[in-house]
Amino acid sequence: MTAALPLTAALPVTTAPPSLADNTADLDRLRAALPQPVRIPFNGMAELAAKFRAAGFKGWAIAHNLPGDLELLDFLPEKPKLLPGVALDLGSTHLEASLIDLLTGKVLARQTALNQQVEYGADILTRIHYAAKEDDLRELQRAAAASINSLIARLCHEAAVSLEEIYVLTVAGNTTMAHLLLGLSPYHLCREPYTPLFNAADPFPAAEIGLKLHPQAMLWLLPSRGSYFGGDLISGILATGLDQAEQTAMLIDVGTNAEVVIGSRDWLIACAGAAGPALEGGVARMGMRAAPGAIEQVSINRENWQLTWRSIADAPPVGICGSGLIDLAAELYLARIIDLRGKFQAEFAGQSEAQRSFVRERLRQRRDELAFTVADGVALSQTDLDAMMRSKAAMYAILETLTAQVGISFAELERIHVAGAFGEHISPRQAITLGMLPDLPLAVFNPVGNTSLAGAELLLRDSSLWTRAQEVCHRITYLELNVNQDFMIRFSGSRFIPHTDPSLFPSVPNFSKLP
Amino acid sequence: MTAALPLTAALPVTTAPPSLADNTADLDRLRAALPQPVRIPFNGMAELAAKFRAAGFKGWAIAHNLPGDLELLDFLPEKPKLLPGVALDLGSTHLEASLIDLLTGKVLARQTALNQQVEYGADILTRIHYAAKEDDLRELQRAAAASINSLIARLCHEAAVSLEEIYVLTVAGNTTMAHLLLGLSPYHLCREPYTPLFNAADPFPAAEIGLKLHPQAMLWLLPSRGSYFGGDLISGILATGLDQAEQTAMLIDVGTNAEVVIGSRDWLIACAGAAGPALEGGVARMGMRAAPGAIEQVSINRENWQLTWRSIADAPPVGICGSGLIDLAAELYLARIIDLRGKFQAEFAGQSEAQRSFVRERLRQRRDELAFTVADGVALSQTDLDAMMRSKAAMYAILETLTAQVGISFAELERIHVAGAFGEHISPRQAITLGMLPDLPLAVFNPVGNTSLAGAELLLRDSSLWTRAQEVCHRITYLELNVNQDFMIRFSGSRFIPHTDPSLFPSVPNFSKLP
Repeated sequence: MTAALPLTAALPVTTAPPSLADNTADLDRLRAALPQPVRIPFNGMAELAAKFRAAGFKGWAIAHNLPGDLELLDFLPEKPKLLPGVALDLGSTHLEASLIDLLTGKVLARQTALNQQVEYGADILTRIHYAAKEDDLRELQRAAAASINSLIARLCHEAAVSLEEIYVLTVAGNTTMAHLLLGLSPYHLCREPYTPLFNAADPFPAAEIGLKLHPQAMLWLLPSRGSYFGGDLISGILATGLDQAEQTAMLIDVGTNAEVVIGSRDWLIACAGAAGPALEGGVARMGMRAAPGAIEQVSINRENWQLTWRSIADAPPVGICGSGLIDLAAELYLARIIDLRGKFQAEFAGQSEAQRSFVRERLRQRRDELAFTVADGVALSQTDLDAMMRSKAAMYAILETLTAQVGISFAELERIHVAGAFGEHISPRQAITLGMLPDLPLAVFNPVGNTSLAGAELLLRDSSLWTRAQEVCHRITYLELNVNQDFMIRFSGSRFIPHTDPSLFPSVPNFSKLP
Repeated sequence: MTAALPLTAALPVTTAPPSLADNTADLDRLRAALPQPVRIPFNGMAELAAKFRAAGFKGWAIAHNLPGDLELLDFLPEKPKLLPGVALDLGSTHLEASLIDLLTGKVLARQTALNQQVEYGADILTRIHYAAKEDDLRELQRAAAASINSLIARLCHEAAVSLEEIYVLTVAGNTTMAHLLLGLSPYHLCREPYTPLFNAADPFPAAEIGLKLHPQAMLWLLPSRGSYFGGDLISGILATGLDQAEQTAMLIDVGTNAEVVIGSRDWLIACAGAAGPALEGGVARMGMRAAPGAIEQVSINRENWQLTWRSIADAPPVGICGSGLIDLAAELYLARIIDLRGKFQAEFAGQSEAQRSFVRERLRQRRDELAFTVADGVALSQTDLDAMMRSKAAMYAILETLTAQVGISFAELERIHVAGAFGEHISPRQAITLGMLPDLPLAVFNPVGNTSLAGAELLLRDSSLWTRAQEVCHRITYLELNVNQDFMIRFSGSRFIPHTDPSLFPSVPNFSKLP
């Protein structure tokens, strides 16, 4: 196995200075000293030649490993101490980026930032509509560039690196974010037949979209598979190695949508569906993103009827995030405070006075519905619960539809990679209890963090992933759920806890047969 | 043999419009419809996608055949009527360009113009010195771009084509002209060890040097072989096919320098030397470029002693151009008015009163030297003659040195291509008489016109010539005459008419043995 070649590399150059016996042109001398033919962009010729000459015709050439081409961008008299590149996950709400030294592959800094496009609309659809006018599209483009510039400036500050030292940037984002970043109209993304303007962009100078890095810095955008399956997911497939695995595995990424891929080195199938909002704070009244003060964990001790919770950063509670919601709903089910339809049981007798008193104290009529108080000022209403039930049903129906489509059972999945904050914070045990995730041994579930960022980092370090990303795009089959009857039937079946068919969840107590 | 692919081509595209069953991204749909993978530059993405969609997902893609890469630059709903490209010979004094339709290969217009850089210095050395300051270099660059822009505007006017329709430009020029056009410092070209900043430039957008064509128009510059062997000569080698010929041939191009190449498909050797000035009007007092009023042909009838001449455009005589000078000197020698050293024979007795009277009338003392009157106000002085003798000696010495270097005799040359105005106007017979060109059958000499322009035209029509040009640069051996002892000896031997060794010129009357 040869060492991975990063997207941008430093190559040693040693040549004899010009003489009457060898008066080869300066740039030809430089070209000849490199291990393969190189392209020299016009706007770099003068500076490269000057730097090469000033360095005494030896030093280090910095080159982009473009597809099928080496392109020179800089020349340094000494081996650089660092060769910094940036990997970026361009989310519709948050950006997360790493500064990586391409000489060693080490992460020098990692930061997150808000996407300034949020000012123009919290959700993607609003932004697509906003971008209908050419000027407004340009405004959104500038907002994305400004967000990235300020995030990279912070990375540079943290690692004591200057912006002009950054030679390369990889970006993974959903298809709409990719269009807006490049200033290309997303108009048709949300209109039948949902056609992107582009899926794959050739690497291009980052300066062309207003990014302030090295003037010749190159931007590599992870390709998309269509309007609803973006470069962030392609990046996740690379990061988890789903496309190269011998055994079949699954990747679940829950954001605004739940995006799911199953496959192996032999085949790949994917779909996306609206399963996320309730888990992301988009629907539940008390719901919120994982942020300080969000209740992320809840348990109900069914011996002494004590409820305990933990909030992010131990801050005073202000809401419930996705993992807290799942925890709470599962605990309420196990305590039989909600029934298998996910409805509060106001009339439920209970098995002890302690339990009855616990329920009396916390389950109250608020306005025209029941709500369960978790902590001071934080309560879960029936409406919130209903939204959560729809999300969990959609999630399980997506997973079932996709496996059924390829004719495999959940038990055949060697691994289920769960990406993002969702993967990091939820308890798979509680998600199984609710019937949101399949009833498999807990070791099958693998929280993998931000795979969109991880894939972008891998690409920075190993240029061969560029071709692999394009191949994944071509190999993957995308299953359209909006027009899928099977999905709708499965969705109905999943609107119970854990399921209308409890035999699918042997590890979950089945209360349907009890009085 | 497959048809030659021009540098820029129009490719038919037919696709089905997007549907739910096939909602491939617009640009991916376009890529997939093309016969090979294409690169889409970032700044063309939006417009290409819009044009493709507006045309109903079918039409004609315009693509550059970059080395190892097809690059899209435009999309048209219908097959274009013309696909105009420009080939340019960028001379230090004159520019000559053709507008060519790449669909048919036909020349639509051809024009010449003055190089506006002349304002900054008539000769190359002056311009190199002028370009020493960054600002002055930029001024020279702008002068070159302005000359080209106005020349192309005239071509467009002649052919009723708009500037924005021109997709591609090929340029052949000497190494200094190439540096100045690209705004790259020629500082080291005239300083030991005479190292160019570059010989080969990758194709680049013409807009980057201020040319006003299609915004994505590409400029292809013929590569140079060194400071004194430019892209104009490489272009000439391609145009004459010297590099592919089975038989050995020679190419002579006389400009400010005499540049000579000998070779075949197996080997190529070249050199350049200062043989031109006297033939170009740079030295002789009455000398001038081929222009209206220049005496281009002279004969002396040795029966009745009548001198006849012809001037360019039959205009009143104002000077003598190179071909006139050679004619006149040869006629003066045959009439024994100059001796074998090229000196006027004031005391020569003559064979008849008619001859003596002819000489008396025309050969007069002017200031401190003899001068021979050709026409009213046009006389050739001894100084002029001496300069011509040095040039002719240098030319023959160059040819001798080069053939001797590879160990062949002149008789082995199947063909001698004589380029430029020199080739078009001189009489090889008279040049042989003077001992300037070798004494070979006249059919060996082949006037080939502007081969610098011809090679640039061929490249436009056939992209495979790009690789061939780079190969020629690598294959060619360049013989440095400035440091060549052999050349100096041969130069001395050639300073007689026809030569110190008259046996080299059996067809020329030998007066050295007569009284």
